[in-house]
Amino acid sequence: MREECGVFGIYGHPNAAEQTRLGNHSQQHRGEESTGIAVAHNGTITTVKGMGSVTKVLTQPVINQLPGFIGIGHNRYSTQGGSTNDNAQPFTATVKQGQFSVAHNGTITNAKEMRAECEDKGAVFQTTSDTEVILHLVAQSQQPELLNAITEALGRLEGAFSLVFLTVDSIIAARDPYGFRPLVIGRTETGFVVASETCAFQYNRAVYIGEVEPGEIVIFNSSGIRRFQYTPQQTRSQCVFEHIYFARPNSKVFGRSVSQTRKAFGRLLAEVKPVEADIVIGVPNSGLYAALGYAEQSGIPFELAITRGPLTARSFIQPSHELRIDTIELKLSADPALLEGQRVIVIDDSIVRGNTSGKIIKLVRSAGAMEVHLRISSPMLTHPCFYGVDIPSPDELIANGHSVEQICELIGADSLAYLPLELMMQAVGNSDYCNACFTGKYPTLINIT
Amino acid sequence: MREECGVFGIYGHPNAAEQTRLGNHSQQHRGEESTGIAVAHNGTITTVKGMGSVTKVLTQPVINQLPGFIGIGHNRYSTQGGSTNDNAQPFTATVKQGQFSVAHNGTITNAKEMRAECEDKGAVFQTTSDTEVILHLVAQSQQPELLNAITEALGRLEGAFSLVFLTVDSIIAARDPYGFRPLVIGRTETGFVVASETCAFQYNRAVYIGEVEPGEIVIFNSSGIRRFQYTPQQTRSQCVFEHIYFARPNSKVFGRSVSQTRKAFGRLLAEVKPVEADIVIGVPNSGLYAALGYAEQSGIPFELAITRGPLTARSFIQPSHELRIDTIELKLSADPALLEGQRVIVIDDSIVRGNTSGKIIKLVRSAGAMEVHLRISSPMLTHPCFYGVDIPSPDELIANGHSVEQICELIGADSLAYLPLELMMQAVGNSDYCNACFTGKYPTLINIT
Amino acid sequence: MREECGVFGIYGHPNAAEQTRLGNHSQQHRGEESTGIAVAHNGTITTVKGMGSVTKVLTQPVINQLPGFIGIGHNRYSTQGGSTNDNAQPFTATVKQGQFSVAHNGTITNAKEMRAECEDKGAVFQTTSDTEVILHLVAQSQQPELLNAITEALGRLEGAFSLVFLTVDSIIAARDPYGFRPLVIGRTETGFVVASETCAFQYNRAVYIGEVEPGEIVIFNSSGIRRFQYTPQQTRSQCVFEHIYFARPNSKVFGRSVSQTRKAFGRLLAEVKPVEADIVIGVPNSGLYAALGYAEQSGIPFELAITRGPLTARSFIQPSHELRIDTIELKLSADPALLEGQRVIVIDDSIVRGNTSGKIIKLVRSAGAMEVHLRISSPMLTHPCFYGVDIPSPDELIANGHSVEQICELIGADSLAYLPLELMMQAVGNSDYCNACFTGKYPTLINIT
Amino acid sequence: MREECGVFGIYGHPNAAEQTRLGNHSQQHRGEESTGIAVAHNGTITTVKGMGSVTKVLTQPVINQLPGFIGIGHNRYSTQGGSTNDNAQPFTATVKQGQFSVAHNGTITNAKEMRAECEDKGAVFQTTSDTEVILHLVAQSQQPELLNAITEALGRLEGAFSLVFLTVDSIIAARDPYGFRPLVIGRTETGFVVASETCAFQYNRAVYIGEVEPGEIVIFNSSGIRRFQYTPQQTRSQCVFEHIYFARPNSKVFGRSVSQTRKAFGRLLAEVKPVEADIVIGVPNSGLYAALGYAEQSGIPFELAITRGPLTARSFIQPSHELRIDTIELKLSADPALLEGQRVIVIDDSIVRGNTSGKIIKLVRSAGAMEVHLRISSPMLTHPCFYGVDIPSPDELIANGHSVEQICELIGADSLAYLPLELMMQAVGNSDYCNACFTGKYPTLINIT
Repeated sequence: MREECGVFGIYGHPNAAEQTRLGNHSQQHRGEESTGIAVAHNGTITTVKGMGSVTKVLTQPVINQLPGFIGIGHNRYSTQGGSTNDNAQPFTATVKQGQFSVAHNGTITNAKEMRAECEDKGAVFQTTSDTEVILHLVAQSQQPELLNAITEALGRLEGAFSLVFLTVDSIIAARDPYGFRPLVIGRTETGFVVASETCAFQYNRAVYIGEVEPGEIVIFNSSGIRRFQYTPQQTRSQCVFEHIYFARPNSKVFGRSVSQTRKAFGRLLAEVKPVEADIVIGVPNSGLYAALGYAEQSGIPFELAITRGPLTARSFIQPSHELRIDTIELKLSADPALLEGQRVIVIDDSIVRGNTSGKIIKLVRSAGAMEVHLRISSPMLTHPCFYGVDIPSPDELIANGHSVEQICELIGADSLAYLPLELMMQAVGNSDYCNACFTGKYPTLINIT
Repeated sequence: MREECGVFGIYGHPNAAEQTRLGNHSQQHRGEESTGIAVAHNGTITTVKGMGSVTKVLTQPVINQLPGFIGIGHNRYSTQGGSTNDNAQPFTATVKQGQFSVAHNGTITNAKEMRAECEDKGAVFQTTSDTEVILHLVAQSQQPELLNAITEALGRLEGAFSLVFLTVDSIIAARDPYGFRPLVIGRTETGFVVASETCAFQYNRAVYIGEVEPGEIVIFNSSGIRRFQYTPQQTRSQCVFEHIYFARPNSKVFGRSVSQTRKAFGRLLAEVKPVEADIVIGVPNSGLYAALGYAEQSGIPFELAITRGPLTARSFIQPSHELRIDTIELKLSADPALLEGQRVIVIDDSIVRGNTSGKIIKLVRSAGAMEVHLRISSPMLTHPCFYGVDIPSPDELIANGHSVEQICELIGADSLAYLPLELMMQAVGNSDYCNACFTGKYPTLINIT
Repeated sequence: MREECGVFGIYGHPNAAEQTRLGNHSQQHRGEESTGIAVAHNGTITTVKGMGSVTKVLTQPVINQLPGFIGIGHNRYSTQGGSTNDNAQPFTATVKQGQFSVAHNGTITNAKEMRAECEDKGAVFQTTSDTEVILHLVAQSQQPELLNAITEALGRLEGAFSLVFLTVDSIIAARDPYGFRPLVIGRTETGFVVASETCAFQYNRAVYIGEVEPGEIVIFNSSGIRRFQYTPQQTRSQCVFEHIYFARPNSKVFGRSVSQTRKAFGRLLAEVKPVEADIVIGVPNSGLYAALGYAEQSGIPFELAITRGPLTARSFIQPSHELRIDTIELKLSADPALLEGQRVIVIDDSIVRGNTSGKIIKLVRSAGAMEVHLRISSPMLTHPCFYGVDIPSPDELIANGHSVEQICELIGADSLAYLPLELMMQAVGNSDYCNACFTGKYPTLINIT
Repeated sequence: MREECGVFGIYGHPNAAEQTRLGNHSQQHRGEESTGIAVAHNGTITTVKGMGSVTKVLTQPVINQLPGFIGIGHNRYSTQGGSTNDNAQPFTATVKQGQFSVAHNGTITNAKEMRAECEDKGAVFQTTSDTEVILHLVAQSQQPELLNAITEALGRLEGAFSLVFLTVDSIIAARDPYGFRPLVIGRTETGFVVASETCAFQYNRAVYIGEVEPGEIVIFNSSGIRRFQYTPQQTRSQCVFEHIYFARPNSKVFGRSVSQTRKAFGRLLAEVKPVEADIVIGVPNSGLYAALGYAEQSGIPFELAITRGPLTARSFIQPSHELRIDTIELKLSADPALLEGQRVIVIDDSIVRGNTSGKIIKLVRSAGAMEVHLRISSPMLTHPCFYGVDIPSPDELIANGHSVEQICELIGADSLAYLPLELMMQAVGNSDYCNACFTGKYPTLINIT
């Protein structure tokens, strides 16, 4: 599973490019396929973007050549192949209202219709990204002012979008009326920051002052901060998977600590899905906090018995055929000294296709564990996401067509249990969250074609 | 001085991507800043482009992943800096009439007005290239068929343009009504090739069958070749500098051999600007053919006394300050054995700012030449080009504000002479050529802003 | 502080090169400056080595070209600068007794004298590495058999050395008589592995069968395994810092689990250096296990409140001057949700110069901690190491010339305490370990020059 | 065919590293596999070397970190594969007499015996290069002074060697007693230069003052230049192929201009092997000068009808199988405007296996030539070289086992003729040259094993 993207914007920093690069860097976990920044200086926006990580694309020499005190940044998720960088963001456009850039996290569900409509009016599409439609809606707006045109354009969009715009003199942040994806605001000594997560505040030392609200536009410029509701809020539908898996543990998203929420998942899981065992361990990194919570609630000792290796499997492409070292093995190592002869509770955040879970159980057993009990800190994953998360197709999800008992057998665990939906919802406050990937109850109308 | 670009297109080859890459490779001299290709396959166009040379950007693995039997390619000239590749071509667009790509050589002189007009109609410009305006004129055309929309768009353009379009099933080549930039057609065993120069026919073994005519559109598709005049031809205004400097000597452009034309320049120069000397030498590579012609006419022996070094100066960026090896010295070497004690006639194609000429004369003298007589195979260069050649600003051109005698003294030659305008025109057939950079007589109205 | 190196050897695997690369990969934490492998095939040894990480130097295409079923590998620590790769290992030599390679972890304390002696006899030294002397001692031995010559050479060496030799048909492992550095043996389905740590057994699925003993030579060849004492064992002097910091937690070194030992350090620290607090946290990665032990013993909850960022600071070289983001901040992130308003016990493995500790305390405070109590899971570090660890010079060590109270104030902690020496020794079994860096009691005579 | 190497040394330049890099650069044609430099500064020698071209290995940042006023350099020829850089030169050694480096052009014919002898005395060989034996002979010499030890070592060597040594305070140049390979001396404003060819004097502006004589040692140090005969000269046996093919045309080697010599070959060839034709052309680059000479003598016009492409074929590795563009075609282009309907004399320097010649003839014919007469500016190549040139094995040489008529037919020429041996020798002064590759008469005794 992959998060779609991370967005970032900074207003009022003497070295906006460097800060934006660091902002992208701290949100690298939200997308590793491509990255980019756009910086405004002397009435012109300069954009640098490319395939690869922040350190590869946004090198120091590149950054040093980008003066300016306003900038936005973007990270995009990793896909297979893709020799083109046309879809890397931010997108920068010159339209009759002026020049602007945009960085997007989410999925515009009516992009196809909007695209057809824009094309009919003479638009030139140069990418396959759903984000590009925003540029054209702005350009085709009859509003002569850029802000008004953007406002009008946002009114046409459906789906999930946390957006950060850059104009030659301001940052404009906006969020869809349901609030699917996070978008936080921080205040620095000399200006403001917006980002997907508060972990992006570390290097600019911003103080968290809240979120861009669903249906809200927030403008940062020389007059300070201005906010207004461009459309009425709908039922808040914040992505619960940000708490389960995507966001960094030290982040606050949707006004809630990620690490604390994960610990709460673990405590509730221990309450309702207990099992006799000697130790509790978590699958790094997202499973560690739920494991801590589980251990706390159950009184069973927590151990750090699975560790990440020095490098990700990605570094070992083209493995020779005779070898067949599994990528899980390249990423993770188990500690025999802690596992030998133990009855082990393994906490993981979710089961997608089931093969990763099976390999982890095998890894733990091969290090000597006597029993392996898998506990999942979220419910059974059964439905696709239309709001910015890349979930495999339903028939690839092991939870479709298999009972918990069947899955347990397939992955080779001694026991398996999921966190019940109502408890997950209780941990995040019982409402305001989208849980469609577990329930199929989508907050918006979806036209599947 | 820099040529703007080279364009290439191939219809009907089982490995169009590989052929397009080779086409770009053979036209690399027309632009080294960026390169790209677009290939159509199964109704979709894939584009790969980037900063750098053909061998760097269009690597074999990239090419191998691009099936298709139709493709176009582009090389772009080298600029200083430029950390963005937004302006690399071909540009690929999806518009209401379908998907297409375009590669452009030339300069659209009314791009600014067209751009403003398109923006007013809601266009999104994503680059600063004058070529992008073509995409928008096509998109905003009311013609439902792509070919008709392109035809209509071309009618709006002013200036110099040799264009190669790719659609999902055809190549469309077009040339401005004055015919400023070259565009040749070749027939292969299984299809057709268009290119800036015939040197691009080497790897596809095409047979030259003529040029795209000024004001003409030529379509290559499954029905074969179709041509029509989309606008009346204007006074033919072919760029004489293609013959003087840009084109490769083994190319035919504007129906005329480049090497033969250069030899003719040299012969005429010898006739009207003789000087007593022991040997005639040419500055590689463009000066060599004129030197051969000069030697032939004058009866003075031709020698290869200046040779290119193993690498261009470009490889030695960041020279240490104490060193001060001149870039001319890194590029060229003189042969003392051939020059020692000789009275030498040096033939070069042009004098721009004069500093290169000065260094060459110094190089020849330091190898022992007793006298150095510089002969230039073109007239005095005095005016900017608005049709696709990057000439320094008029006040940087040494021929503005200096007499031939003054230039001779400034560059340190024993004598200096230029090829008179009327003889240059005679060598290329006396008409059909633009010589505005020597005369200031521009074939089209130019609005300088 | 830096570990000097990691060594690896495999006998009897159809793809020894691939396995050696994976062995190096799993020991990458023992050295990131350079890496290399040597593989024997058809009577000849091929060596590939270079500056940089395993994934950079030992690429898949390189590995695929190296057939053979015996190989050795080496990782070397990172130094600043160093544009030469002459010191990368393994070293491969052809001498009168045949061809062999060697990989070394440790420091040969009499290298200077041995080098002078070898030079006097006509040796050519091609590197500045202390390891090269081994090649020459072998070459100058009068023993006609390679094994005997190696045995004789080892008898001349003083200091710390865990060595893995490759000949055209065998692996020879050897360890100095004090056993300073680790060297473990594993049995695979078809042969044997030797390595610095058992974490290197993960990808070859070896079963741990013990250590190369101090003063022992172990030979792996077609006759199986053969071992003999080439010199009497001296007082076992195993490096206690392997347990404190260097080794990976899931490794066993010196017959003892690293994670378990670190937890024991933490438990003892809690016993003798208690402090009232709300949470216990560890500095990743080495401090985490001692923190778990401390929490277990004290009953104060363990939290994962400091996490590693996505990338190491190394990726952000050449930081702009205005920025001044600290490298600690680039590496580590604190979690305000877990730290806000808390009294925090921070466990770290050691204090070297003190500046890192100061920054970590600042990081924890800036995330909202009310009190920060630092507990160190080892004694005060005061003396240099002559046995393979790169410790700063004594006057750079903060523990020299400062009391615990002074250090506490300098680094800005609310309280500070170290693990007493006798408890550390108790945790590792009270003897068999070198603790000279804490006590100055060196097991061997050291001639400092 | 490949030249083995180029050597370079400079004494007395404030930026010796930069000058050595430029020296290597200007001799890049003598070897492209690897390159390196060694610079002495403050009593220590630093060496930087690696696989690839000068611009790739000796980058500006590397050079900038190398102070010193004495340095030597080396280029090595290109081989296929070779993932190791162990054989790159200069070699640097520390021996009992001190530290020194050496760069070698040639082949030491008794390297095998010398190696065995050194190994018996306890030498450690770390490469497979014949040059390494020199280090060991120096190290094993009983002479306490480095110069004397080097002198003694040289007395043991047989074969071809032009050597440049670097010590911490001097350059020592030496040449074998037959003088097989060139070694020229130049005087700069502040010191001296030695190099394989005078083309290496361009960037240091040295004035040619002669050659290191066969059997001579020349020392450059703070006392100036000192020369002595370390062994009696043997029959001068200078490599005639330096004039035919290897050396750059603007160089002087063996006291003779390369371009003038090639022109002389061409004139003699025209005299004895005339043919009726319309034009004379040369195969770039080595055939051009002989073609000029042929044209001069015969009165048939010289044309530049074959030109080199923008890049070498090397850039197009991994060509797709369907394509089959020949490497000759990627390197060379023919000019139809100059060749169409012509009777053409093509001059090339030699025929090795014959396939290249066949392709060139095909290329010229496909550009329209009516007749193609090949003239070779050297005799039939029939024997291997033992003195530093890599000639294919005798059975691969087309001249073995085929008559001139047969070769003519095989390569598809209308006529073929070689320069007779006695005329070639006459052109270079009738003696002093080794012509063993044409005659099998080797100046030294060769033990073939």
